[in-house]
Amino acid sequence: MADAIAPGEVWLVGAGPGDPELLTRKAERLLGEASVVFYDALVGPGVLDLIPPHVRRVAVGKRSGRHSKDQGSINDLLVAAALAGERVVRLKGGDPSLFARAMEEVAALAAAGIATRICPGVTAASAAAASAGISLSLRGLARRVQFVTAHVQAGAPLEMEWAALADPGCTTVFYMGRAAAGEISRQLAAAGLDPKTPVLLACDVSLAGEQLLHTRLDLLPLAAQAMAPGKPMVILIGEAAGNHRQAQVTALHEEPAHGVC
Amino acid sequence: MADAIAPGEVWLVGAGPGDPELLTRKAERLLGEASVVFYDALVGPGVLDLIPPHVRRVAVGKRSGRHSKDQGSINDLLVAAALAGERVVRLKGGDPSLFARAMEEVAALAAAGIATRICPGVTAASAAAASAGISLSLRGLARRVQFVTAHVQAGAPLEMEWAALADPGCTTVFYMGRAAAGEISRQLAAAGLDPKTPVLLACDVSLAGEQLLHTRLDLLPLAAQAMAPGKPMVILIGEAAGNHRQAQVTALHEEPAHGVC
Repeated sequence: MADAIAPGEVWLVGAGPGDPELLTRKAERLLGEASVVFYDALVGPGVLDLIPPHVRRVAVGKRSGRHSKDQGSINDLLVAAALAGERVVRLKGGDPSLFARAMEEVAALAAAGIATRICPGVTAASAAAASAGISLSLRGLARRVQFVTAHVQAGAPLEMEWAALADPGCTTVFYMGRAAAGEISRQLAAAGLDPKTPVLLACDVSLAGEQLLHTRLDLLPLAAQAMAPGKPMVILIGEAAGNHRQAQVTALHEEPAHGVC
Repeated sequence: MADAIAPGEVWLVGAGPGDPELLTRKAERLLGEASVVFYDALVGPGVLDLIPPHVRRVAVGKRSGRHSKDQGSINDLLVAAALAGERVVRLKGGDPSLFARAMEEVAALAAAGIATRICPGVTAASAAAASAGISLSLRGLARRVQFVTAHVQAGAPLEMEWAALADPGCTTVFYMGRAAAGEISRQLAAAGLDPKTPVLLACDVSLAGEQLLHTRLDLLPLAAQAMAPGKPMVILIGEAAGNHRQAQVTALHEEPAHGVC
């Protein structure tokens, strides 16, 4: 195949949201061609089962509050493996182009003369919308869809363009927003977004333990506490997040579900 | 399998950007379980080859300037097939939650008492970034990533929140932006975005005829004319769009490529 992994080459591969069926066919092929796979904490056991037994696997997971390697150490491992002539897959949860620090690894590899290629993946926002039976965009109501990360260094303030985020004609998805749920709710309301704006919380998207919770902006801090702790969570905010008809969805607020647009 | 297609059920399935290897494993399974597949013009021949020969396939493609079915006719076809007890896949280019009019189909089906489920896909923006070897987000430089569609009814003005789109700390992706390239360039510059802001144009992303063109905001109208006509195109705007190191990328402007961030 034209883009088989060459020895000494590194592929950054998106593992998708968690369900091993939501890997791309290409990602599955690349896992089979690799000699070593470096994977994140967000890559679940079902996905790791797709790695053939003869392929070496190395956990380099970063997750808040757990022991993990820093980015520099991960870069060093990738460079060393590629220089040793390995066929390297760097497996990342979701899509490598969204909040995955892909360019830091690409830059470190490029500085060592190592070629990097990227295989895209399904991002958690798309998977959360699919699970909830909604669309991120809605004709006439949500023509703009924006993704932001609420992850900040410990103790750092959450600096955001709140005015751009508070647009009622937009669907906004916060990645890694659990710790900031209270501030997100307060700041968006202060910037003018209706406190009744629909919100969807999604934990462990596409996995067996998936949780979906429909709420609204003013109840977001409370609702976030109802989600399983320690699990990756995305927060979808906007009219599009309110189009729910799925039986498994819990409604935290009393209003009837929004009509179909 | 727990989520096999039931007779009389409709699955909206994301076909990804074009390369049949960029379908998810789940999408491939669902194509094999369907009794009929309704597909868009944007779904390429390589993807259609994944549909088993015994499965009926129906083109319902919408594409500017070609004969195609309107949304109401597509809804009617889906409803009729489901009511006839078929196992229906509605195959859509990209991801069903982004600019795919998914909710219009879900609503029509729900009104007829038909259950709909959604399988997410890789969206063109992620695939374009992967092909160009860049990331849509960049730590410190692009913490917000936004997707908009520039598609409007013939003759209608392009109404956008240009101020929110002109944020230099953001990566903005226009879907269906070819016809509006001139206006996008003018309006973003008028809203204060640096005319030298990097832009990546991507046509036929992930397919054999893929074109990637790095340019900058003020040269966008000219660059758009250099792209193959009649092909789907995405426009990526922002500092993140300038991180290119791939040999196959054409540089339209004379400045050296941006450094790695």
